[in-house]
Amino acid sequence: MAEKKSSCIVLGGGGFIGTNLCRRLHDDGHRVRAFGRNCPFPEALEGVEWFPGDFGDGAALAAAIETFDVVYHLVNGSTPLSANLDMAGDVQRNVLASLGLLEICRKLGVSRVVFVSSGGTIYGSPRQIPTPETAPTDPITAYGISKLATEKYLALYQHLHQFDYRVLRVTNPFGPFQTSMKNQGVVASVIERALRDEAIEIWGDGSVVRDFIFVDDVVDALLAAMRDQSDTRVFNIGSGEGHSLRDVLGAVEALVGRQLRVEWKPGRPLDVPISVLAIDRAREILGWRPATTFEDGLNKTIAWWRDKNG
Amino acid sequence: MAEKKSSCIVLGGGGFIGTNLCRRLHDDGHRVRAFGRNCPFPEALEGVEWFPGDFGDGAALAAAIETFDVVYHLVNGSTPLSANLDMAGDVQRNVLASLGLLEICRKLGVSRVVFVSSGGTIYGSPRQIPTPETAPTDPITAYGISKLATEKYLALYQHLHQFDYRVLRVTNPFGPFQTSMKNQGVVASVIERALRDEAIEIWGDGSVVRDFIFVDDVVDALLAAMRDQSDTRVFNIGSGEGHSLRDVLGAVEALVGRQLRVEWKPGRPLDVPISVLAIDRAREILGWRPATTFEDGLNKTIAWWRDKNG
Repeated sequence: MAEKKSSCIVLGGGGFIGTNLCRRLHDDGHRVRAFGRNCPFPEALEGVEWFPGDFGDGAALAAAIETFDVVYHLVNGSTPLSANLDMAGDVQRNVLASLGLLEICRKLGVSRVVFVSSGGTIYGSPRQIPTPETAPTDPITAYGISKLATEKYLALYQHLHQFDYRVLRVTNPFGPFQTSMKNQGVVASVIERALRDEAIEIWGDGSVVRDFIFVDDVVDALLAAMRDQSDTRVFNIGSGEGHSLRDVLGAVEALVGRQLRVEWKPGRPLDVPISVLAIDRAREILGWRPATTFEDGLNKTIAWWRDKNG
Repeated sequence: MAEKKSSCIVLGGGGFIGTNLCRRLHDDGHRVRAFGRNCPFPEALEGVEWFPGDFGDGAALAAAIETFDVVYHLVNGSTPLSANLDMAGDVQRNVLASLGLLEICRKLGVSRVVFVSSGGTIYGSPRQIPTPETAPTDPITAYGISKLATEKYLALYQHLHQFDYRVLRVTNPFGPFQTSMKNQGVVASVIERALRDEAIEIWGDGSVVRDFIFVDDVVDALLAAMRDQSDTRVFNIGSGEGHSLRDVLGAVEALVGRQLRVEWKPGRPLDVPISVLAIDRAREILGWRPATTFEDGLNKTIAWWRDKNG
């Protein structure tokens, strides 16, 4: 007997992770709708219904979600940099808009919300590496605080309304359909500029260590989070390994076969020196594991950029 | 040589803790201004400058704070009950208004902000009793989430702007100037109705345990938080002891010398079964300790109510 397929709506479905997730859900036979403001890769979403709308527009959101079982919340109303410059706006676009979403989902009887939180910012400057889900959450960016608040409201909705949800604290994802438009995604930025032979701006001395994870592995985790029947709600999703920015530069240089031009800029107070997450919980409970090596992920990403540009 | 006295503004200075704090600061020789919407006990604030204004009104707030060194943030835009009924409004009145306050204080060069957070709700249903400051913060009320978010923004301001602050997570304070108007303050409510021989509504079976602390002890902690030179920022402030609601009823009954009439109501999902905080950190670092026994505190509170009722 065939498994019953859930119908899924992906909020932020035109974005980087969203586009990858929608494609996989569609390939797996789910009914899929993508909701968002921008859809930079419409051809990538063939077979996926595109529903344009603003996350802060409750009426549009309710109309989009109606009749869908599972809601993926992948919306970022800010970046770590922009959120610090306008903290109140960040609260409006993320916390208040997410509260609006929860109330819509509760009223519509949505079966589960899967929220992509920020593995890279929610712990702040971690005292424990790799960092488990039980570590203190002391963000040093407003971006991390609004993600944390959204997690807390999800838990409150569960407490008050038996609301079902999962949170994935995703580290630094990279891969196809990530563009460097929003000043996020250092891998995309490095590859794009390397292929164009443009100078690459690096803030700090390149020693900053991040937990880079290939987007296909994130998508695997998002699918596992939809199916999970455990009592656990929050999962770190990362590679479990750290790579410095210098590692990224060196690996891209080797794979592209061209020396990179780097412009070194002063470090920013929002950059924690090291962020690597412990992923044992997701391994054990979701039965998930990252399947793509750092080099394989970079190779696939470079191939996508070459294909896109050529 | 006399100690130099700080000038202090108390936001929410007309409220229960605020009134007690303003009186003490004035008695101790500080220049004191009270800011708030309501001042139900103007005669209690003799010698204290009253500056009427709404916490959400940035212009009024800036005008009030100018020239003051220390800002006490005691504003509650919601109660645990009302916040759950309007979570977005709670975010507006507390989180966004507090963000406005932080920016004003940063621009004015305020030397310290002392924020009264919620010891009773910030930990949610605690897994460890008594609960230390390092315990997980998983509120089961929106009220607790907005207090937590405000704490996180204070820490972020310190990280970004070398902002100086202290947080006191106060448990269940009781004492003179607490009224039962806002559906908060079970001790005030029990005493007021006992003296009037009115029926007392108790939610649940009375087994709920709380950490009741006499307001003079809270004021002691607020003064210690102004002077503290440690690197610690967050302190639990409670009695360190638990008393059930049945204990409160029994003690008030004995002290008032009259049998209470109790109306038992169903429990509410926002009531955690037990909340008692570990106060070792405040003892060690602030050199503070609760000096008033539960019975002495109740006696003083009953005396105040008798005096008030004339």
